[in-house]
Amino acid sequence: MKPNFSLRLRVFNLNCWGLPYVSKHRSDRMKRLGDFLNMESFDLALLEEIHHGDWFCGKAVGLLVFHLSGLVLNAYVTHLHAEYSRQKDIYLAHRVAQAWELAQFIHHTSKKADVVLLCGDLNMHPKDLGCCLLREWTGLHDAYLETQDFKGFEEGYTMVPENHYVSQKDLEPFPCGIRIDYVLYKAVSGFCISCKSLKSTAGHGPYNGTPLSDHEALMATLCVRHSPLQQNPSFTYGPAGRLPLISVLREAWTELGLGIAQARWWAAFAGNVIGVGLLLLVLLCFLVAEERAREVAILLWTPNVGLVLGAGAVYLFHTQEARGLCRVQTELQHVLGREREAQDLSSEPQLALLLGQERGQN
Amino acid sequence: MKPNFSLRLRVFNLNCWGLPYVSKHRSDRMKRLGDFLNMESFDLALLEEIHHGDWFCGKAVGLLVFHLSGLVLNAYVTHLHAEYSRQKDIYLAHRVAQAWELAQFIHHTSKKADVVLLCGDLNMHPKDLGCCLLREWTGLHDAYLETQDFKGFEEGYTMVPENHYVSQKDLEPFPCGIRIDYVLYKAVSGFCISCKSLKSTAGHGPYNGTPLSDHEALMATLCVRHSPLQQNPSFTYGPAGRLPLISVLREAWTELGLGIAQARWWAAFAGNVIGVGLLLLVLLCFLVAEERAREVAILLWTPNVGLVLGAGAVYLFHTQEARGLCRVQTELQHVLGREREAQDLSSEPQLALLLGQERGQN
Repeated sequence: MKPNFSLRLRVFNLNCWGLPYVSKHRSDRMKRLGDFLNMESFDLALLEEIHHGDWFCGKAVGLLVFHLSGLVLNAYVTHLHAEYSRQKDIYLAHRVAQAWELAQFIHHTSKKADVVLLCGDLNMHPKDLGCCLLREWTGLHDAYLETQDFKGFEEGYTMVPENHYVSQKDLEPFPCGIRIDYVLYKAVSGFCISCKSLKSTAGHGPYNGTPLSDHEALMATLCVRHSPLQQNPSFTYGPAGRLPLISVLREAWTELGLGIAQARWWAAFAGNVIGVGLLLLVLLCFLVAEERAREVAILLWTPNVGLVLGAGAVYLFHTQEARGLCRVQTELQHVLGREREAQDLSSEPQLALLLGQERGQN
Repeated sequence: MKPNFSLRLRVFNLNCWGLPYVSKHRSDRMKRLGDFLNMESFDLALLEEIHHGDWFCGKAVGLLVFHLSGLVLNAYVTHLHAEYSRQKDIYLAHRVAQAWELAQFIHHTSKKADVVLLCGDLNMHPKDLGCCLLREWTGLHDAYLETQDFKGFEEGYTMVPENHYVSQKDLEPFPCGIRIDYVLYKAVSGFCISCKSLKSTAGHGPYNGTPLSDHEALMATLCVRHSPLQQNPSFTYGPAGRLPLISVLREAWTELGLGIAQARWWAAFAGNVIGVGLLLLVLLCFLVAEERAREVAILLWTPNVGLVLGAGAVYLFHTQEARGLCRVQTELQHVLGREREAQDLSSEPQLALLLGQERGQN
């Protein structure tokens, strides 16, 4: 590779709002999106919400591995579970679990990548637990924070503004100025990456027309350069560098504990409903056999069977949910233990140094 | 790393037959397994079937990343879906899909590994499609085939023999001499790995006692050595080298197509049952309203509602199944296209060479 190697990447990201039957003017918007992408010739267009809606077991990460003039670029695209209410977010633990799984996936699949790029609708604000966990574990940088030249709104921070499809009323449960779509990146040893410009469509569509989605499109121009002096940050983790990671891992562990407790409560509740329903069924059989209130008993039979079956489904669902969250929590516990150990080990020489200095002063 | 670097690894693998309620003498066997592992001090003990039984969405791969004297070793452990009948294997497509997902997981997560080790119960014979796909895509070698010093049965090949828990009758649906548990490995550029010895417990437990499981334990001694001349095989793929891969990818694609057709047939069947059930419900409502055969109608109501709900569950299950298989098939199609392209490209110079030779001869 030439020493003055540099690569410019124009990246487009959009949550397409492509839910069948639910999303308004879907085919028209998709056609306009296609026309726009054909006109603009981005190097990379990453799109979310093309197959189906929210379902916390059904989320996935897309991975594209590019070999560009001797450089390996891993591009990831994802869409995490929505936050339907910030005040009472019943999917917080799930989103934290998804953020951890995403972070681990990137961590393990990008070992030979020179540049890592993650785009997508993370459904999180930049200071949210899942977002911090993702950044701390992967070392990814947020294009928004590192770009001098951001073109979006006057208030800067808002990326899901009132537009043709989203009214101020829809945004009311959220604090003003939310940002849930991201372009994140990092370069590994030997390379550096910077974001030259970041643009959003500022509540309009491209060329100031009708918006393409209920989300903002993000358009970033990234520049990758050869930089032989650039060190791999994972090797320069001192004990102080580990503290934010340990703190965020601990917080995530606690949040998953709350999610597990909630899931188990629902499973136990459904279990009780099944018990009561089965007792009622026995009682109804008894009433029919004794020829007392026979017609009422026969009429009540169907809703009662429905209740038991429904409660059974709820029980299975929440048992599986608790199990899934437990698995992630166990993994976090393991990593947390290892990170604490590493911190203790790397603190020892520092402690010895401090003690040595003290002795010297005495 | 020293030029004469070498590492000896003693590996133990066992499907523990640890299903709650189903597996016989579970706690006794687990205790004996623990004692045995404590006595023998293997470097790595990989166990399967500790949490739950067969469920084709619930299979997973475990990944352990070791840093040993400057060498990175990725150890994988897995358990694929069982084959309940070889003559009528309704889970063949699922196992092929799992083998592909496993192969892709290893492919993408082992980029920086010097040595890759996969142990587990693959539930496949060495020449089965999924097994070939896994070996072709990852470049892993089978310890059994590469070991001079195999200690197991006289017939060599059999690794699930008649033992204390598995009678010849249980093995009847299988052809004689099945082998479904594996130790597979490869070393990447700069290293070489060989299997010094491979042992199975030959139908007994350790020290000739009662077996530890209904599966055989596998014990391998691997030796990793520094080998600067060792080339990464993925870079030496000629057009002929690609042919077995292309052939196995094509076969897997076809097999998944059959699985998808089967899943869709069941979904369509369940859809028809739902339709008939709903019609019957309307008819029953009509009979009740008209006061004709009222009691019979009320009695038939519950089983009919149950039928519709059950068929609904079957419909959802098989729709999801078809979707999952389709996703894997699409991925295979993409890879197949790329491999064919690469073959065409690498065939061109060879073709030119052949034409040149012909011209020279003329």
